[in-house]
Amino acid sequence: MAKAADVYFQVDPWKIIEEGFDPAYSRVSESVFSLANETMGVRGCFDEGGSVDSLRGAYLNGVYELEPLPRSYRGIIDHTHYMIPAADWLAMELTLDGERLDLGRVRFRDFRRELDLRAGTLERSFVWQTASGKELRLSFLRFVDMVHRERAYQRVALTPLNFSGSVSLSSGVSFEVTHEGSGKCFWQDARTEADGRRLMLQSRTAHSGQEVFAGAALELPGDVSVRREGRRAALSASLALREGEETRVDKRVVLLYDGRGGETLWQAGLEALRAGEAVSLDEARQAQRACWEDYWRISDVQIEASGPDAAAVAAEQQGIRFCSFQLAQIYSGGSMRHNIGAKGLTGEAYNGHAFWDTEACCLPFYLFTNPGAARDLLLFRYNTLPQAMARAKMLDCQGACYPIATLNGDEACSLWQHASLQLQPSTAVAYGIWHYAHVTGDRDFLYAYGAEMLLQIARFLASRVEKGGRTGRYGFFGVMGPDEFHMMVNNNAYTNYMGERTLRCAAETLEAMRRERPEAYDDLARRTGLGEAEIGRWREIAGQMALPQDETGLIEQHDGYFDLPHTDIDAIPVSEFPLYDHWSYDRIYRSDMIKQPDVLMMLYLYNSSFSEAVKRVNYEFYEPRTIHESSLSPAIHSILAAELGKMEEAVRFFGFATRLDLDNYNRNTREGLHVTSIAMAWANIVYGFAGLRSDGEGLRFAPRLPDRWRRLRFSVLYRGRVIQVTMEKGLTRLMLTEGEPLTVQVYGKPCTISGEETQVPCP
Amino acid sequence: MAKAADVYFQVDPWKIIEEGFDPAYSRVSESVFSLANETMGVRGCFDEGGSVDSLRGAYLNGVYELEPLPRSYRGIIDHTHYMIPAADWLAMELTLDGERLDLGRVRFRDFRRELDLRAGTLERSFVWQTASGKELRLSFLRFVDMVHRERAYQRVALTPLNFSGSVSLSSGVSFEVTHEGSGKCFWQDARTEADGRRLMLQSRTAHSGQEVFAGAALELPGDVSVRREGRRAALSASLALREGEETRVDKRVVLLYDGRGGETLWQAGLEALRAGEAVSLDEARQAQRACWEDYWRISDVQIEASGPDAAAVAAEQQGIRFCSFQLAQIYSGGSMRHNIGAKGLTGEAYNGHAFWDTEACCLPFYLFTNPGAARDLLLFRYNTLPQAMARAKMLDCQGACYPIATLNGDEACSLWQHASLQLQPSTAVAYGIWHYAHVTGDRDFLYAYGAEMLLQIARFLASRVEKGGRTGRYGFFGVMGPDEFHMMVNNNAYTNYMGERTLRCAAETLEAMRRERPEAYDDLARRTGLGEAEIGRWREIAGQMALPQDETGLIEQHDGYFDLPHTDIDAIPVSEFPLYDHWSYDRIYRSDMIKQPDVLMMLYLYNSSFSEAVKRVNYEFYEPRTIHESSLSPAIHSILAAELGKMEEAVRFFGFATRLDLDNYNRNTREGLHVTSIAMAWANIVYGFAGLRSDGEGLRFAPRLPDRWRRLRFSVLYRGRVIQVTMEKGLTRLMLTEGEPLTVQVYGKPCTISGEETQVPCP
Repeated sequence: MAKAADVYFQVDPWKIIEEGFDPAYSRVSESVFSLANETMGVRGCFDEGGSVDSLRGAYLNGVYELEPLPRSYRGIIDHTHYMIPAADWLAMELTLDGERLDLGRVRFRDFRRELDLRAGTLERSFVWQTASGKELRLSFLRFVDMVHRERAYQRVALTPLNFSGSVSLSSGVSFEVTHEGSGKCFWQDARTEADGRRLMLQSRTAHSGQEVFAGAALELPGDVSVRREGRRAALSASLALREGEETRVDKRVVLLYDGRGGETLWQAGLEALRAGEAVSLDEARQAQRACWEDYWRISDVQIEASGPDAAAVAAEQQGIRFCSFQLAQIYSGGSMRHNIGAKGLTGEAYNGHAFWDTEACCLPFYLFTNPGAARDLLLFRYNTLPQAMARAKMLDCQGACYPIATLNGDEACSLWQHASLQLQPSTAVAYGIWHYAHVTGDRDFLYAYGAEMLLQIARFLASRVEKGGRTGRYGFFGVMGPDEFHMMVNNNAYTNYMGERTLRCAAETLEAMRRERPEAYDDLARRTGLGEAEIGRWREIAGQMALPQDETGLIEQHDGYFDLPHTDIDAIPVSEFPLYDHWSYDRIYRSDMIKQPDVLMMLYLYNSSFSEAVKRVNYEFYEPRTIHESSLSPAIHSILAAELGKMEEAVRFFGFATRLDLDNYNRNTREGLHVTSIAMAWANIVYGFAGLRSDGEGLRFAPRLPDRWRRLRFSVLYRGRVIQVTMEKGLTRLMLTEGEPLTVQVYGKPCTISGEETQVPCP
Repeated sequence: MAKAADVYFQVDPWKIIEEGFDPAYSRVSESVFSLANETMGVRGCFDEGGSVDSLRGAYLNGVYELEPLPRSYRGIIDHTHYMIPAADWLAMELTLDGERLDLGRVRFRDFRRELDLRAGTLERSFVWQTASGKELRLSFLRFVDMVHRERAYQRVALTPLNFSGSVSLSSGVSFEVTHEGSGKCFWQDARTEADGRRLMLQSRTAHSGQEVFAGAALELPGDVSVRREGRRAALSASLALREGEETRVDKRVVLLYDGRGGETLWQAGLEALRAGEAVSLDEARQAQRACWEDYWRISDVQIEASGPDAAAVAAEQQGIRFCSFQLAQIYSGGSMRHNIGAKGLTGEAYNGHAFWDTEACCLPFYLFTNPGAARDLLLFRYNTLPQAMARAKMLDCQGACYPIATLNGDEACSLWQHASLQLQPSTAVAYGIWHYAHVTGDRDFLYAYGAEMLLQIARFLASRVEKGGRTGRYGFFGVMGPDEFHMMVNNNAYTNYMGERTLRCAAETLEAMRRERPEAYDDLARRTGLGEAEIGRWREIAGQMALPQDETGLIEQHDGYFDLPHTDIDAIPVSEFPLYDHWSYDRIYRSDMIKQPDVLMMLYLYNSSFSEAVKRVNYEFYEPRTIHESSLSPAIHSILAAELGKMEEAVRFFGFATRLDLDNYNRNTREGLHVTSIAMAWANIVYGFAGLRSDGEGLRFAPRLPDRWRRLRFSVLYRGRVIQVTMEKGLTRLMLTEGEPLTVQVYGKPCTISGEETQVPCP
């Protein structure tokens, strides 16, 4: 299964650059040039629209529509939900000599588009050559405010190169937006008003009844006329341009969605719009740059080449920065109502849904760069605990069963085999709580929120577990583990092991809470009906969980896995990938072929709990059976390969990690960015090549620099400290750029680091 | 899981009688009073319609509509089809003194409805008491012609009891009929004409494009007016009634659906209508009775009570006759385009689809009462072989994969887990071919049709089988056996065993054909690309099929079944049945609880191939784990229990077999009759209590009369003979009422039977 780069963008350390425009890449560019600030996101689509192939989408986190599903069996969801586009705030049109600007139809030259990772802005410029012979240079700038997250900005700058004269420009805001999957516009009952150079709109979704306010303050020279029709409003003006002089049209936008509606929302919207007008676009742009500079101070990963691979490493440098940039855009904390959709706010694929990837893959990035954001992600799970409890009930269980796919906390996966059989979202939430508390030591969070989630998840697992199997011990029957190529199996090792750890963690956490915060514990126990017997039962189940290994430490993925027919995955022609598109659905499930790490996933998550020998025997058994039809798969393998000293494999699996979307490796970047894979690119470097381990006592590093890198430098935040790690050939240098001295393990030996650099030679 | 009778109808040896009308049973009565002649069927709904709860349905076998399904994975069907109601030929209205006849609103007395199993007619009568004080006796008669299957008849007889005067009557034919599931009428482009007292209509289904001609010739006294609107036409007249005198309105109907359309169909319809008019309703009624008398001569099962259970046995006598009557109505051969829907033509549940029940459950009834019909059922499979081959291809396999649910030969089951994982339809077709040829000796059928189906089914199995499992032998992975409570399992014993037998049967049949009909064989081999190597491979697979038994003969239902958690099915409250309605879907699949016989099913089908010891150990193991959530399940258990001398259990499982629908045991008879269970009621008696076995050498009997029966008498057709079996206490009497002497086995000993009665005492 060879993946190949589809190189389109220019390499630059801090920018993503498109020079010249290829309409065939239009949607790929739109995805790559997406901007977001967690609250809102917008694809890199052309402000002026036109006939170019486009998924025109400006999204608000948490805005979705509902769809009823056909009646089916009990425990299978009867409606789903999906993200829909919200107000299009970029909407504008330009006409010169009767020619409408449309890059799918007009002549133009010197097209350039540039995403600046340090400035957090997207710029686009070109020269429009009209049929009448005029040349008009156009520059577009946009950004979404990283601090005032309801704000966004657009600037259109027009410079006539060979004429003076007028152009017609209209600019507005529109709720006439179509959800591509259904082909429908869900916005209704729009209120639209104009006041001077301000536009105000409010509209409501048809089924979910969510209301959004959208306002824009325009700086548009000359006389303007207002056009309001249906669900859109715009201002139009005839701009008198002078040859060689730049004329700017600035639009300061406010989008408000916070659960309120009606007149209350409208008034809040007006207020937000007025507040936004106190800041000019240029001032906001300055603040935006400062905000990103602050971000890069901690989160930058620097890679330098060693010798002949300079070009490839420069691409990796750009790639990892693009990943970090996107992660900060998608989520940076502040809202406990949002999670991280598989495509973030960059496209409508996966319906805006978040998966267990959040806890299993994304959380470490936030834990070590922005622990507050990690906490807020977990609070999303706390806020949706009622839905998880309702879901457990639907499944004839107790406690809380977290959804495999969701936007609002309800299960949204209409494939029952995933929604009902995958317990990993619940154990991943438990893992995330434990991992967060373990790394940060945040006991306030743990006892105020974490303990209750752990309790309900443990309760769910205890109601779902059964005794049976070859061992006669406890186990989970009828499950689908992380390897989705084995649908309904018994005693999936991952599920059993994660279940066991979750039950123990819940018991330990609640027992510690009883000692440390007896009042809070009593309150929780009273509210949830928790008694000592229940905790005892969790311990009993955990103690008798089926977790068989053979004498070499090899773990069977599930009961009967070793007896399955063997598929030689190297014999599958490349043309048959992705298998879901080329193989009959049931055929995928009939052999020992694995979609993504399953046993290896638990060896990754609870890495410190397994010996190197166990990791080696399982890696060597399962890796050749894995086809990596999940974009998360290679990184897990790369991290384990690095640990096992298989550097060649580690580098091979790292391969396209940093540039999965920049080079469109999966050929579906047009649908949006692979946000959770982006998070694993960071983990691949920090857990893989720097050998960070955070699931044991304290922090551990075991740096292993790939040959083609001369230097790797990154920082991690840890309990009020900033640890800067610089890996070079034969040597790792560690120092604290902030905080008190700290002892960590490097290559298994204690190493105290401080503001002074500590050097550790490679063993 | 206790099932209880819901007694509503009167017991009578040859009639089903409803005295007085309970609107709550309206739909149950409609199902029970269904009439059919294989080509058309009609529920026992009120001719005059009205506000009574009703599923008004007149169906034509093979008339269906198509529905696209959401795009899903490869191998999953993208459209389905379902039976829709065809022309309503009973349509009529009656008005007296401005009061419209509607049994949901008017006053009436002396309601009686009667299905005569010897006459094949449904009659209904009551006295209508108008608000104006008039009393009008109404009698309705209907039947569908068992010989001229395009014909049906309706008579309305009106006798004023206390007045002379006029009533308004209109009677017609309507394509304004609604498919209940979708709430839609699919008939369009209707052509309607009237000519004297004849009505002619033709209409086409919206998506499947099927055309139906419906004509009616009315005998309606007085002046008539014609009403044609949309998709309906009717004649209206004012009938002058005289006190105490009966006035009749006869309607002779023709419904034509034969694949033709347009003017060709129209002309054929007119011709059929004219031909039908040559026979009066009373003449047709005479012929109908003669036809049914002929039927009962062979197919009657007579049960006489012993002592105190007379009432219960009288109910059983009525019940088994009702079953035989319905089986003859649903299918009696003559068409190779039709199969036996799970609800026949008695309702829209299961969408009119046929399942593998046809070969596994219904075929024996036809084999021993109407072997031509058995052959025609198999020819339906031959005629749909191209669709089965297309289906195999969809599943990345070769050969032919028969559908789990179908009406036209295409797979119609939208639940992929059933459609893609259940191989039993294909092995059941192979079993049916083998069983038919084995019992009848019909080598012409076998070589002209059967061999090709066996070849393609064997080819399918050989492309679906894999090596693996604990034994490392061949087996089927990722299957759902007959026990639908274990979805995706490996080495399901039933599937492996049936696969093995199918492969051997295909090899043997083709090798015999090569010897006996070399030219036909060469032609087949050429058309299908069959070579000796392929047959050799089938034998190799069959020889190495995994079919493990333990030392006691116990067969594990599938790999890992013995390790599943145990469910004490006796501990499940009755209120939780049916489980599909009360348990979360995935929960059903997690234990050793079995829905219906699986290992026992193969011991039933290939009964002669297993020792009594093997049957006993498996029966005793699996029976307590089976909850019988298939109406076919109890009969299989009863037959095996009888064989094992467990007469009490055999009688208990027989329980409601003959009256499943008459007493609405499953509380869903309103949806239609359980046609395939009806067939198993016959098998339960003949295979169970008479101990017939037809899968070994010759015929074998082992009669075991239940205590409460004094006598059981039935006949079976076998190779030109009619064998009459009379079972009494301690004694079985056998004789041929037709044909040459024959040696059968009785209680394991040869017994020659002839026109003279042979008596065999019970051992």
